[in-house]
Amino acid sequence: MDGVTDLPRAGAAEEGARPAAVVTGTLYGVGMGPGNPDYLTVRAVRVLERAHHLVHFCKAGRRGNARTIADAVVQDPAREWALAYPYTTELPPDDATYVSALARFYDEAAARMADELGAGRDVAILSEGDPFFYGSFMHLWRRLKDRFPVEVVPGVTGMSGCWTRAGTPITWGDDVLTVLPATLPAAVLARRLAETDAAVIMKLGRHLPKVRAALAEAGLLGRAVYVERGTMAGERIALLADKPDDQAPYFSMVLVPGEGRRP
Amino acid sequence: MDGVTDLPRAGAAEEGARPAAVVTGTLYGVGMGPGNPDYLTVRAVRVLERAHHLVHFCKAGRRGNARTIADAVVQDPAREWALAYPYTTELPPDDATYVSALARFYDEAAARMADELGAGRDVAILSEGDPFFYGSFMHLWRRLKDRFPVEVVPGVTGMSGCWTRAGTPITWGDDVLTVLPATLPAAVLARRLAETDAAVIMKLGRHLPKVRAALAEAGLLGRAVYVERGTMAGERIALLADKPDDQAPYFSMVLVPGEGRRP
Ligand SMILES: C[S@@+](CC[C@H](N)C(=O)[O-])C[C@H]1O[C@@H](n2cnc3c(N)ncnc32)[C@H](O)[C@@H]1O
Ligand SMILES: C[S@@+](CC[C@H](N)C(=O)[O-])C[C@H]1O[C@@H](n2cnc3c(N)ncnc32)[C@H](O)[C@@H]1O
Repeated sequence: MDGVTDLPRAGAAEEGARPAAVVTGTLYGVGMGPGNPDYLTVRAVRVLERAHHLVHFCKAGRRGNARTIADAVVQDPAREWALAYPYTTELPPDDATYVSALARFYDEAAARMADELGAGRDVAILSEGDPFFYGSFMHLWRRLKDRFPVEVVPGVTGMSGCWTRAGTPITWGDDVLTVLPATLPAAVLARRLAETDAAVIMKLGRHLPKVRAALAEAGLLGRAVYVERGTMAGERIALLADKPDDQAPYFSMVLVPGEGRRP
Repeated sequence: MDGVTDLPRAGAAEEGARPAAVVTGTLYGVGMGPGNPDYLTVRAVRVLERAHHLVHFCKAGRRGNARTIADAVVQDPAREWALAYPYTTELPPDDATYVSALARFYDEAAARMADELGAGRDVAILSEGDPFFYGSFMHLWRRLKDRFPVEVVPGVTGMSGCWTRAGTPITWGDDVLTVLPATLPAAVLARRLAETDAAVIMKLGRHLPKVRAALAEAGLLGRAVYVERGTMAGERIALLADKPDDQAPYFSMVLVPGEGRRP
């Protein structure tokens, strides 16, 4: 199998000039889109078909969601490379044990990837949505980008998939859009929501009760739409006010559509 | 040529049951991505190949940018349908003449599309980036959605294309992202910028001097990246502080990357 060679690869030219030198592989960050494989880009499909390694993040013992999206394009277990997070939601994100375990996890994964890249093999990291938008890929990119050629393939974000499926434009005219992680404190969420025209609240999970309260405080509960697994199997969409419980999985978000100028 | 028939079409079933009834066409909003046709989705390519009409917005006498992106997939002038805006930047967006001319323009275009849709022909409106994110498509969608089956194909946004090409992740950890139209007043821009972790400033054009001043006031000029025609022919990327002039075309934006948690 060849590497992806239809785009010029940074660094490859000089290395090729030295006789017998190994041409390093390319690190790809592949945007996998919101979930439906029809929303993969042409470029993402090409990289998935050709890269030597297809890396995906997951919980221990489970398949990552990005890998499930790739099933539509590649059925090739030999190229799969699962990276199981040391923790997922067991510890708060500012806990020192969590942060140092995560740093070690990224360091070790980057070192293993550097070995493969150094031996000339292309490593594609599958990233949900767009890789440079809250993506775990960024932590490996940061560790490898100065040593190896990199190509990031932008993707349709989860939020685009969600507002598309909810059937609601998110911003009109001069609307300001604020993207908020649900992990922020309740008071911060309420203040930010009160000031914006449109909002997307990501990383919902167990934070839904807090988010609901912040939306109510900002007077936006009536406009909020809940989207779970947008564009994927098991999709659920409802006005948040109509959702009877406060259960929300990791793949869910709340949208507050803007109401700007409509000539 | 057949319509796009590989997804069930809302409404088509009931109509098909009445003998000799005309099955209405589907209105498609096709996200064309940031500019490079490699960043079209698989679904967008499919709809472009099959729809009866390919509609694009443009300035009078010019080809629209979305149409140029489509050139990579379709060379078929017979299906092209150009919608020339009555005004573009000659009048301020809140001018009454401008607003009523624009409303008339959308009304007339929607009426012509309704004729085609009613006669069973699929109409695909080509939208730069993602259709439901500040897209002109939304104004036609609003006028037609309750009468015809609609499919929106989400796209890679212009901003994803721009931060990808600038080589800079936009949000880390708990970063708040604020998307601001450059058309807002200077004081509003400065205040919003001062409060956010990361920002995208769209619709730059002649507003660049104001945006530069607002960034300086918010202490963010050093972090701001200017991207013109991201992923397209004629792309230009620079630190805004290094850009010597205040010329910016319509297809340009400023990015302020976040600096959140990086384990
Ligand atoms: C770590 S962020 C990664 C975002 C991703 N890089 C993107 O561009 O969408 C994960 C969050 O994205 C949101 N998300 C992504 N795809 C989604 C989908 N299809 N449906 C609902 N939420 C989604 C959820 O809020 C989830 O907690
Ligand atoms: C009316 S908005 C449409 C946005 C589009 N629907 C999207 O999803 O990106 C037009 C603005 O998008 C931004 N834009 C879109 N694509 C761009 C690109 N490739 N490079 C620079 N700016 C772009 C510019 O700021 C432009 O003024």
